[in-house]
Amino acid sequence: MRIFACQINPVVGDLTYNLKKIVEKIREAKKKGAHVIFFPELALCGYPPEDLLFFPHFIQQMEGCLDTIAAETKGVFVVVGFVRANNKKIGKPLFNSAAVFIDGACVGFKDKTLLPTYTVFDESRYFEPGEKQKVWEFCQKKIGIVICEDVWQYSGRVGYTRYHRDPLKEIEKHQPDLLLNLSASPYYFQKKEVRLDVFSKAAKFLQAPMIVCNQVGANDQLVFDGYSLSINAKGELVQLAKGFEEDTLVVDTDQKSLTCLCTSDPIQDLYQALKLGVKDYFAKQGFTKACFGLSGGIDSALTACIAVDALGKENVIAFCMPSRYSSLSSLEDSVQLADRLGIERKDIPIDGLFQHFLDLLSGQFLGRAPDTTEENVQARIRGMILMALSNKFGYIVLSTGNKSEIAMGYTTLYGDMAGGLDVIGDVSKTMVYKLARWINRKEEIIPRSILEKAPSAELSYNQKDQDTLPPYDQLDIVLGEYVEEHMSAESIAKKHRLDLEMVKDLIRRIHRSEYKRRQGPPSICVTKRAFTKGRVLPIVQRWVY
Amino acid sequence: MRIFACQINPVVGDLTYNLKKIVEKIREAKKKGAHVIFFPELALCGYPPEDLLFFPHFIQQMEGCLDTIAAETKGVFVVVGFVRANNKKIGKPLFNSAAVFIDGACVGFKDKTLLPTYTVFDESRYFEPGEKQKVWEFCQKKIGIVICEDVWQYSGRVGYTRYHRDPLKEIEKHQPDLLLNLSASPYYFQKKEVRLDVFSKAAKFLQAPMIVCNQVGANDQLVFDGYSLSINAKGELVQLAKGFEEDTLVVDTDQKSLTCLCTSDPIQDLYQALKLGVKDYFAKQGFTKACFGLSGGIDSALTACIAVDALGKENVIAFCMPSRYSSLSSLEDSVQLADRLGIERKDIPIDGLFQHFLDLLSGQFLGRAPDTTEENVQARIRGMILMALSNKFGYIVLSTGNKSEIAMGYTTLYGDMAGGLDVIGDVSKTMVYKLARWINRKEEIIPRSILEKAPSAELSYNQKDQDTLPPYDQLDIVLGEYVEEHMSAESIAKKHRLDLEMVKDLIRRIHRSEYKRRQGPPSICVTKRAFTKGRVLPIVQRWVY
Repeated sequence: MRIFACQINPVVGDLTYNLKKIVEKIREAKKKGAHVIFFPELALCGYPPEDLLFFPHFIQQMEGCLDTIAAETKGVFVVVGFVRANNKKIGKPLFNSAAVFIDGACVGFKDKTLLPTYTVFDESRYFEPGEKQKVWEFCQKKIGIVICEDVWQYSGRVGYTRYHRDPLKEIEKHQPDLLLNLSASPYYFQKKEVRLDVFSKAAKFLQAPMIVCNQVGANDQLVFDGYSLSINAKGELVQLAKGFEEDTLVVDTDQKSLTCLCTSDPIQDLYQALKLGVKDYFAKQGFTKACFGLSGGIDSALTACIAVDALGKENVIAFCMPSRYSSLSSLEDSVQLADRLGIERKDIPIDGLFQHFLDLLSGQFLGRAPDTTEENVQARIRGMILMALSNKFGYIVLSTGNKSEIAMGYTTLYGDMAGGLDVIGDVSKTMVYKLARWINRKEEIIPRSILEKAPSAELSYNQKDQDTLPPYDQLDIVLGEYVEEHMSAESIAKKHRLDLEMVKDLIRRIHRSEYKRRQGPPSICVTKRAFTKGRVLPIVQRWVY
Repeated sequence: MRIFACQINPVVGDLTYNLKKIVEKIREAKKKGAHVIFFPELALCGYPPEDLLFFPHFIQQMEGCLDTIAAETKGVFVVVGFVRANNKKIGKPLFNSAAVFIDGACVGFKDKTLLPTYTVFDESRYFEPGEKQKVWEFCQKKIGIVICEDVWQYSGRVGYTRYHRDPLKEIEKHQPDLLLNLSASPYYFQKKEVRLDVFSKAAKFLQAPMIVCNQVGANDQLVFDGYSLSINAKGELVQLAKGFEEDTLVVDTDQKSLTCLCTSDPIQDLYQALKLGVKDYFAKQGFTKACFGLSGGIDSALTACIAVDALGKENVIAFCMPSRYSSLSSLEDSVQLADRLGIERKDIPIDGLFQHFLDLLSGQFLGRAPDTTEENVQARIRGMILMALSNKFGYIVLSTGNKSEIAMGYTTLYGDMAGGLDVIGDVSKTMVYKLARWINRKEEIIPRSILEKAPSAELSYNQKDQDTLPPYDQLDIVLGEYVEEHMSAESIAKKHRLDLEMVKDLIRRIHRSEYKRRQGPPSICVTKRAFTKGRVLPIVQRWVY
C-alpha cells in the first residue's frame, strides 16, 4: 500500500486556497499510484483558526467543501482535517474532525478526542471531544485515525494535565494495521525530539506502523515545522519529511525500510523557524517589504539577516537613526552589515527632532533631572519615523527586541517596541548570540565587533545594558526557569546557585513590565512559553510587584 | 438563621490583603450575630488569577491561608472561594473550589462543576471539574454550595455550550434547605437582568432560597458589579446588595421578606462600571494621577468626566495639543469642559514639531502626496508627548478611542491608541452619546456644542468621520451583530435593511485592523464581547480580507 502524507502549508481561513491545494495534492498522489492520501489537522481551514470558528457561516462553508474533495477520491482512501458541527445539541457545538473519503464518497468522520487547553492551545474553547475510536478497512488493512494530541497521553508528555482517557488504549482493541496521525504541532526549541519520542512510544504500544502528517508554515505567531514522519511497528523512525517547507512523505508499506536518524542542528532549526515565521507573516498578508531600525547592535543585525533570507535583500530596507548618544563604531558596523547583506540603507539622524521635542517640553520638565523619559523619547522618535515610512510605502516594520530585554521591560513602549512583527521577541539574548555565530559559521556576515562589544541601547552617555541588568547568562536562566517552568525564586536560586535577591528582583521586573508586553508586537513563538501567545498574566495583580 | 454574603473587592494575587479582608468580615459578621458567612468565588486570590495559577508555590501559599481562616470560624459556618490542588493526579491539577469551615475547622471542599470556557472565561485551561454535589448540615439546615456557572446550565443561558451535567439537578436529590452561590460574574450591559433570571429559575426549581455572593471591583479589564442577592423559594427577588461597591447582604431566613424589584438605569450602570474600572485600575496598581489628550471631541470629554469622578479632579490633567487642523471651537470647548470639571489643563501646541518631522522626512517622501501618514504623525506626536509626561511624572495615560472607531481601525497605532487604559474602548459611539447625555442629565457639564458637532479627528482640513465611515448608527448595528453575535453580512443586511456591500465593507475593515487592536491598550469590558479580552482573532487570515 502506498501512503501519501501531504505536508501542506494552509492559510488560516482561506478555504478556497486550501481546498485547491488539497485537490491538487490528491490528483498528484493518484498519478503516482497512491492508495491512501492524508493531510494535517484542520488542513481545510488552517491551524489555528481561533474565533473564526464562532461564525456559523464559516463552519457551513467548510462543510460545503467536502463534496468537492469527495469527487476527487475515486479509488483511493483520503483523510482531511476540518471542523464540523456537533449536531447533537449537547456539549460544545463543534468537533475538530477528520473527514474520511473512500472511493468517491465521504464515509465518516473521526473527531479529536483529546483537546489541548494549555500554553498556546485553547481547543476546549471551541470543541467537544470525540466519543469513540474506530478503524476503516481499505485494501484489506484496518486503518486507524487519530488527531495530534490523541497519541500524546500515552507517553505522558502532554502539558499541564493528565487526560481521563487514552485514545491509543481505546483504539488498541480494534487492532489497526496502520495508524494515521493528522497533526498541527507547532515548533518550539528541540520539540522534534519530543515528538519523535511520543510517536515512537505510540507505534510500539500498538505494534503497528504510524504515519504522522504535520502542518508546515507559520500562521500568525506559531510556526509549524513539518517534519512529518513514518515509524515502524517497533517504534523506529523510518522516514522523515523535510522541515520548514511543504513536502510529501511517500510510504510504501510493502517495502522493507531501513531505520533513519532524526538529527539536525537545533540552532539551524531555530533559525529556520524564525525565517519561515517572517516569510509567511508577510506572504500570507500580501506584504513584501520590510523596514527596520539598524542600530549597530546584535539584535537588529540578527533581525536583518533573517529578514533578508526570508524576504530577499531587495525587500529589506535599513534605517540608521543616530542621536547624540550613538557611537561612531555602531554606525560603521551598521554600514558594514548593510553592505554585506546588500540591502538599502538610509540615514535619518534624529538629534534635531529630539532637541525640538526637549525644547517643547522644557517648560513642563523644569527642575526635573533627565531620566528614562529622555531615553524613551529617542526610541519613540525612531518608532515614529519607521511607522511613517511604513504608512507611506507599505513596509511592515520589524521590531528588534529580544526576549530577555522584553522580560525586563528594558524596551520602550511605542518606541523600539513599535512594529508589525518582532522577529526575535521570543529569543533570549543568549540564543541571539548563538544564532549570530551560526550565521557567521562559514564567513563573517555579522561584523565581529557587533558580536564582541558590550550590549548597549545607546540612549544616554556610555550606557551599557549591564549597568542596570545582571549578566545576560544569569538573566536568561531566571527567564527560562520562571517563565517556562514556573519555578519559585527560591528554587531557581538554589538550583543555579544564584543570589536569591537578584532572582527576586528579576521576577519583580518581569511582572512589573507586563503592561508593556500587553501592547507589544506579535513575535514568532520558538520556546515552550512565549510572552506574546500562550501566556496570560494580569497587569493588575499584587502577588509579585 | 442569619446569613452574611460578604461582597468584597479582592486584589488579584494579593493573598495577604484578601485574607485580612476576609478575616475582618468574618469578625464583623460574628459580632452581628451571623450563623453563616460566605464570600465570592475565588475570593482568596481574586478573580481572574489567570496564569498565576500555574505557579505551584502560589497555590501552596493559598492553601496555607486556610488555617488562619479556620481559626476565625468558632461557632459559625463559613465558605470561602479559593483554588486547591487536585491531588488525584488525573485531569487538570487544580480545582476552582470553596473551602467550608464549621466551628473552627475546615470540614471539606466543594469544587466548581461547570467550567466556563468561552468569551472572557478560560477555566478549562486551569481547572478540573468538581465531581459531586453535596450538602452540609448546620443549625438543622441542609446547606448546598454551588459556584457561579454551576447554576447557569439549568436556565439554558450559558454561552456557546450545553454542558453534559446540570449540578442543580444533581443537588436536588439532597433536598437542600438553602443554596449558597459563590460568584465572580463580570458586568456587561444589562447583565443584571440575565443573572436575575438565571438565579430565579434555579431557586424555583430547587424550591429553596438561594443567596448569591458576587465579587465586586475591577480586575484588569473585567468589572464585577456586585449586586449580590437573595431569592426566595418561589424564585422571587427579596434582597439586592449594592452595585459597584463593597457591601454585605444580611439575610434572616426566619424573617418573612417582601419581594423587591431589580430596577436601575442601564446607562447609569454602564457609567458606574466604567468609573469603577478606572478607579480600581489605578488604585490596585498604586497609581493616582491620570493624564490624557483633550481634543474638544466627545470621546475625550466623556473620558475626562469618568476619570474625574473615579480619581478626583486634582488627579486628572488634560493636555490640549492643537495642530494646524485644530478648530478654534474645539479649543474653546476644551477650555470650557476643563473649567467645569475643575481640572488642570495645559496647552502644548504640536505644529512646530509636526513641521520639523515633515521636513526631516521630506527627502524620503519626495513626490508622494500627503495621505494618512501625515495624519498619523500628528496623532503619534501627541501620543509621544503624553507618554513623556507619563514617564516623567508617573501619570497613567488614558487613551480615548471608542469601540466603533477601534473596530474600523480609524485610530492611530502608537498615536491616539497610546495609553495605559482606554476607558471607553468597549463603548460604541452610539453609547458614548448616551453616556454624555446621561452625564448632562441635571446640568450641562459637557458643552452642548461637543454633543452637537459632527465627529472629527481634525487631522486634515475640514475632516469629518463621516467622510470615510458610514453613519455611526449603522456602523454600530453591524458592530454589535458581527462582533457580539457572529452574524453573517447577509443576515445583518437583511435583518436591519442595510446595504449588503456596506455591511461587507465594514466587516472587511474590522478584520483588516486586527493588527492594530492586538497592540492597543487594555479597555474596560462592558459588552458581551470586547475587542481587548475574550476575543481571539488571527491577524494573518484570509477568510475576510
